[in-house]
Amino acid sequence: MASSQTRRGGPRDLREHVAELERRGKLVRFDMPINKDTELMPLVRLQFRGLAEEERKAFLFEHVTDVHGRTFAMPVLVGALAGSRDIYCIGMRCEPGEVLERWSAAQQHPIPPRLVEGGPVHEVVLQGKELRGEGNGLDRIPIPISTPGFDCAPFTTMSHWVTKDPDSGRRNLGNYRGHLKARDRLGILVVPTSDFGVQWAKYRRQGRRMEAALILGCAPHISFTAAAKLPGFDEFAVAGGLAGEPVELVRCKTVDLEAPARAEIVVEGVISTEELEPEAPFGEFIGFMGERHLNPFFSVTCITHRRDAIYGAIISQFPPSESTKLRQMAFEPVLYRHLKVHANLPVTDVAFHESGGSWHYIVIQLKKSNPSQAMQALHTAVGFDPTIGKIFVAVDDNVDPHDADAVNWALCYCMQPHRDMLVVRGRTGYLDPSASPLGEKDIFPPPSGNSALLIDATRKWEYPPLSLPKREYMERARKLWEAAGLPRLKLKAPWYGENLGKWDAELEEDAERAVRGEYYETGEKLARQRRKME
Amino acid sequence: MASSQTRRGGPRDLREHVAELERRGKLVRFDMPINKDTELMPLVRLQFRGLAEEERKAFLFEHVTDVHGRTFAMPVLVGALAGSRDIYCIGMRCEPGEVLERWSAAQQHPIPPRLVEGGPVHEVVLQGKELRGEGNGLDRIPIPISTPGFDCAPFTTMSHWVTKDPDSGRRNLGNYRGHLKARDRLGILVVPTSDFGVQWAKYRRQGRRMEAALILGCAPHISFTAAAKLPGFDEFAVAGGLAGEPVELVRCKTVDLEAPARAEIVVEGVISTEELEPEAPFGEFIGFMGERHLNPFFSVTCITHRRDAIYGAIISQFPPSESTKLRQMAFEPVLYRHLKVHANLPVTDVAFHESGGSWHYIVIQLKKSNPSQAMQALHTAVGFDPTIGKIFVAVDDNVDPHDADAVNWALCYCMQPHRDMLVVRGRTGYLDPSASPLGEKDIFPPPSGNSALLIDATRKWEYPPLSLPKREYMERARKLWEAAGLPRLKLKAPWYGENLGKWDAELEEDAERAVRGEYYETGEKLARQRRKME
Repeated sequence: MASSQTRRGGPRDLREHVAELERRGKLVRFDMPINKDTELMPLVRLQFRGLAEEERKAFLFEHVTDVHGRTFAMPVLVGALAGSRDIYCIGMRCEPGEVLERWSAAQQHPIPPRLVEGGPVHEVVLQGKELRGEGNGLDRIPIPISTPGFDCAPFTTMSHWVTKDPDSGRRNLGNYRGHLKARDRLGILVVPTSDFGVQWAKYRRQGRRMEAALILGCAPHISFTAAAKLPGFDEFAVAGGLAGEPVELVRCKTVDLEAPARAEIVVEGVISTEELEPEAPFGEFIGFMGERHLNPFFSVTCITHRRDAIYGAIISQFPPSESTKLRQMAFEPVLYRHLKVHANLPVTDVAFHESGGSWHYIVIQLKKSNPSQAMQALHTAVGFDPTIGKIFVAVDDNVDPHDADAVNWALCYCMQPHRDMLVVRGRTGYLDPSASPLGEKDIFPPPSGNSALLIDATRKWEYPPLSLPKREYMERARKLWEAAGLPRLKLKAPWYGENLGKWDAELEEDAERAVRGEYYETGEKLARQRRKME
Repeated sequence: MASSQTRRGGPRDLREHVAELERRGKLVRFDMPINKDTELMPLVRLQFRGLAEEERKAFLFEHVTDVHGRTFAMPVLVGALAGSRDIYCIGMRCEPGEVLERWSAAQQHPIPPRLVEGGPVHEVVLQGKELRGEGNGLDRIPIPISTPGFDCAPFTTMSHWVTKDPDSGRRNLGNYRGHLKARDRLGILVVPTSDFGVQWAKYRRQGRRMEAALILGCAPHISFTAAAKLPGFDEFAVAGGLAGEPVELVRCKTVDLEAPARAEIVVEGVISTEELEPEAPFGEFIGFMGERHLNPFFSVTCITHRRDAIYGAIISQFPPSESTKLRQMAFEPVLYRHLKVHANLPVTDVAFHESGGSWHYIVIQLKKSNPSQAMQALHTAVGFDPTIGKIFVAVDDNVDPHDADAVNWALCYCMQPHRDMLVVRGRTGYLDPSASPLGEKDIFPPPSGNSALLIDATRKWEYPPLSLPKREYMERARKLWEAAGLPRLKLKAPWYGENLGKWDAELEEDAERAVRGEYYETGEKLARQRRKME
């Protein structure tokens, strides 16, 4: 674990990360003028509907305009946190195979943040009149419309809220959108089951407004923890654990909170707990527009930012998106660790499928040492959070849990619906339009909420071998393939056969005889075993 | 339907098809020596585990050897029927979008075959002593081992059996493997629920052996019907319907059956109905080795072939394979037509997923005009055949039924497990190792067989719009994308937003105001709707 305690030379802020993306060929600098409200997000969207994941890049828009012809000093950055798995790993400064372990080590060895006296985020401080009137306040920030044609306003998306529990003082850092309503006012969506929602309800019961600091743009490892599910942790400390050094925080100017010293922009303010306003619609990561509901709003008391701040946005909405990738990369390690450490299960991988919004389709890969472990893993997973997961599938360790086709193969040949499935009631259906047609009751429609499906798609007994040639023949074929100059292969597991228990010495001998060209001898043997039908 | 009545200039035999594949860049001529038992199939296998489907080709091996250094006059052709969707469509002489209609028209207008006096398949006739002794009989044919290391022998795979019903005289053409046991004997696998199996049981009850003609290599449209599920049809007549002209047949030399005049090879003989022999193991399309069971055997009475015959093989085993593609392309149209014509359902597409062996994972896309049609379609589909289908999913017409991720998206957001699923018992579990550990009872383990799962993943009421920008913004972004010289897009549907009913005039107006840059006006309106919490 020593490696998590030493600084890895990771990016200290968003701009260092942008430089690294550019160095690695993962940044498009877009220097044609682009309208933030009608053109910018649709352009980036195209790569999520029309390119393979490994081709996707982060986009830096350097000439941002709006419909009125206004130009902005700040450039807009999109897709820089999780435009793809590769981009995420650049932010994490690790290889794709190391993400699970990196998260696990950070939770094992969190490093508390360090308070410092000042930082670049305070280079510009806007208060009072500077928050109102054209070009002032939030008008300075080129917040794009994510889903033109359906969204009712620009929304902040790389949008991390710092709040504190009024009783324990415990800090929370979470990523939630901000609905741009005025130059000094944002609407917010409070999910009651989130830490943010729980804190807000406490403030409300105490008759107090909730102070908040909205961080717009910071080092990727901080953003990664803001998008993760880390119950019981100070997210800044886990971010410290990821980086191997403490996050440096500065005190905010107008609220009793702290924010990263090297953030790009921080918006300080207070959230209503007595009055609500309609919020949204906003395009959701589930693939449908989120509905308009009454929700709190945030009144800005101060904006601070770096002199040459970059405004960062996350592209979410229809999956797959940056939002589903971000959640996938953060949720998988957390559930993996929960199953492995807290339930002592022989879990070898966990996959949150982006098709389900990295929320509702979850596959657990394990190497069972006991038949009950598949159902145990499914129960532990469904118990983790009342909103996360509608379909949970357990598979053996020779099935790639990230590949929908591989999982479907296991569903077809390792599972019987009447025997290996369980429907679980009493779930909360966060953002799930299939729950009910009533709108307001979607979260827990009577009489017993939403449901989830647990499927044990592991083998229940010994199976015949996989029907692929043995490894030695496939290796030999690979050499022939290359010698013949055939196109480059990108082999997908499994690509050679494997004994799964149901195979005996006689069959093994027959197979060996066959490749020696002595199959007629086997034919003669089988003729000697000929028998009359009963 | 006139078009199905006129000849389309399709291939009349296998060699014309090979020439067309080569012309279209879909054939690899492999001229290095290759061992049919250890190297040939593993080489072709690589492309199913390591290339994208559109890159796959058919392989023609011109210098085939075996472990004893024997060489063969006949070349071996693999992947020529259905190495990919493109290859299949070349054999069908149609575009991918026309396959459903092509099959439907052929069933609507079958053309009976025509008996002719002679044909090239009789250029060489082998009988008596020419069927026995080294280099004779089946030794002439370079039958490869499909799964070296596990298969117990070479098996014929592009292997169509012609038989006749002993009562009605109705002909059957079906594709079943042949286990090479001697130069004049093949083992066969009888599936009791197949037409072949039903006929065989009748012969057995009448105390007679069953005559059969094994066709090895013929025009692709004949092979396509041999691999289809066409209850009640003479497959040769449907093949005639596909081509728009009758298939020409010649009488066999030693059995009372007919075979295509332009076939490459025909093996004539009789199948035992009193005695059985152990058959297999052989790598199955489900992804596991098929088990050894007692089965009938075929005794060769005559082999006829063209002077320069090509031996064709289908690469099956671990999915996806040529076998799953072949079945997919044939089964989808048949079930589509069954649902549409026989059950009058508004079905728009049907997908048999190759991951489930093109057998067990079936998705039905429909444009519901009545809420009950999704469940009706699922019941009709599960009733089609007792072995076909373990997981049946119904989706709306904006979900691509062929894309596992798109289907999972619908499962996550248009379905509640407790409400929209039904488990059906009493299924027959053909080749399904999850059925039972007992081996012999796998087909219908007591007390009530296997099970299937029916899932209605269609929307049950109006939904908010898809969270993608409206089409006009995406079209505009596409122009910008191209102007900026970004990588070529291959857009996947949906790539723009769509109204699904739950959207009103106020939200539409707010969205229009937003793209005009007047979102603060909406913010003011929402502030006027502010209210105290209860």
